[in-house]
Amino acid sequence: MSKPIVLYSHATGPNPWKVAIVLEELKIPYTSKFIDFADLKKPPFEKVNINGRVPAIEDPNTGITLSESGAIIEYLQETYDKNNTLNYTSSPEKYLVKQWLHFQMSGQGPYFGQAVWFTKFHSEMIKSAQDRYLNEIKRVLSVLDRHLEGKQYLVGDKATIADLAFVTWDTMIGRIFGERGNEINIEKDYPNYYAWDQRITARPAVKKIIADRQAAMASAKH
Amino acid sequence: MSKPIVLYSHATGPNPWKVAIVLEELKIPYTSKFIDFADLKKPPFEKVNINGRVPAIEDPNTGITLSESGAIIEYLQETYDKNNTLNYTSSPEKYLVKQWLHFQMSGQGPYFGQAVWFTKFHSEMIKSAQDRYLNEIKRVLSVLDRHLEGKQYLVGDKATIADLAFVTWDTMIGRIFGERGNEINIEKDYPNYYAWDQRITARPAVKKIIADRQAAMASAKH
Repeated sequence: MSKPIVLYSHATGPNPWKVAIVLEELKIPYTSKFIDFADLKKPPFEKVNINGRVPAIEDPNTGITLSESGAIIEYLQETYDKNNTLNYTSSPEKYLVKQWLHFQMSGQGPYFGQAVWFTKFHSEMIKSAQDRYLNEIKRVLSVLDRHLEGKQYLVGDKATIADLAFVTWDTMIGRIFGERGNEINIEKDYPNYYAWDQRITARPAVKKIIADRQAAMASAKH
Repeated sequence: MSKPIVLYSHATGPNPWKVAIVLEELKIPYTSKFIDFADLKKPPFEKVNINGRVPAIEDPNTGITLSESGAIIEYLQETYDKNNTLNYTSSPEKYLVKQWLHFQMSGQGPYFGQAVWFTKFHSEMIKSAQDRYLNEIKRVLSVLDRHLEGKQYLVGDKATIADLAFVTWDTMIGRIFGERGNEINIEKDYPNYYAWDQRITARPAVKKIIADRQAAMASAKH
């Protein structure tokens, strides 16, 4: 591989940074193109992703254009992680990784996203809708916490793309709860989850991307 | 393969029926176990799926227990569809199938599900929340309609697990809009999507599962 992958990204959206973590973990060269929210649902970006969302990638080494963070990280791992450092090749582990990745894509991202929407952006502040999604965050943390009892990682004895996929939404929980932060105590109520999150976010690639994202958010404000 | 797969299911939940369609398409023997909503988030079902949701499967031929409909249909296709009738083995097609499957899992299912919640089950009827999700249904249909312009299927020249994954939520759109049905005209506004949906729901396996689901819903009411 010689040419850098193009990652279409956004400073504040968590999903592109999920892809950045996997690119960084696998030491794949890439460049980020930040797209304003206003330009996502217009051509020319709709030619990259007809769904008008980031992330998307263009890989000049294979010619593929691909969207949906879950599909992209599976593509990157299968194409460039020849020693399978971030996945398994045999059953049941490879399918359990898919199980947790699909749970992240369908059960964490969209619901944490609705919590953001109803606590920060909706046209009216509706407590019953906020409660619904803040409670769902707690439920997702409880599922992970119970699963991680006695375990270091979601599947087997190493971090996979499934573990890495949860980070960029998880780091937003404090901001999502905001003034209601007293209603959640992650370290005390979800200790297995907390230890796992500390383990994953201590990885050099993850630390770098968390810092890159903070820098991008800071400069986007100016 | 000799022993039937156990599919944990529910009469009204759309996601287990997505798995049933793929089992039927691939002529894999299976038995359905219907779990009441009240029993999903209790042991013993939490031993099958710690997330307390259906679908889940147990495959006595391989020993796997697996949840998340997206992961299950990938498992079934890779394990039992030896001629790859419902997927591709080469890039970019295999990753584009993943892209559309992840879009279904993260962009269709959860949002159509929130539309159901706020139009039928929420503690108060909030028009701005209902509008948000009914509009998102229209947006998802528009994405599919624009992508399907001049195409028979989402990827390449045959139906894959990605096409099949959309059916069981799509068949609920009429009921979700309910009294607001005059706000959507699928055949007129999304003609490419409509033709594709007709094409997929005409498949014998899909027709059989739509009928099975209707029968299960009818008997669940008594």
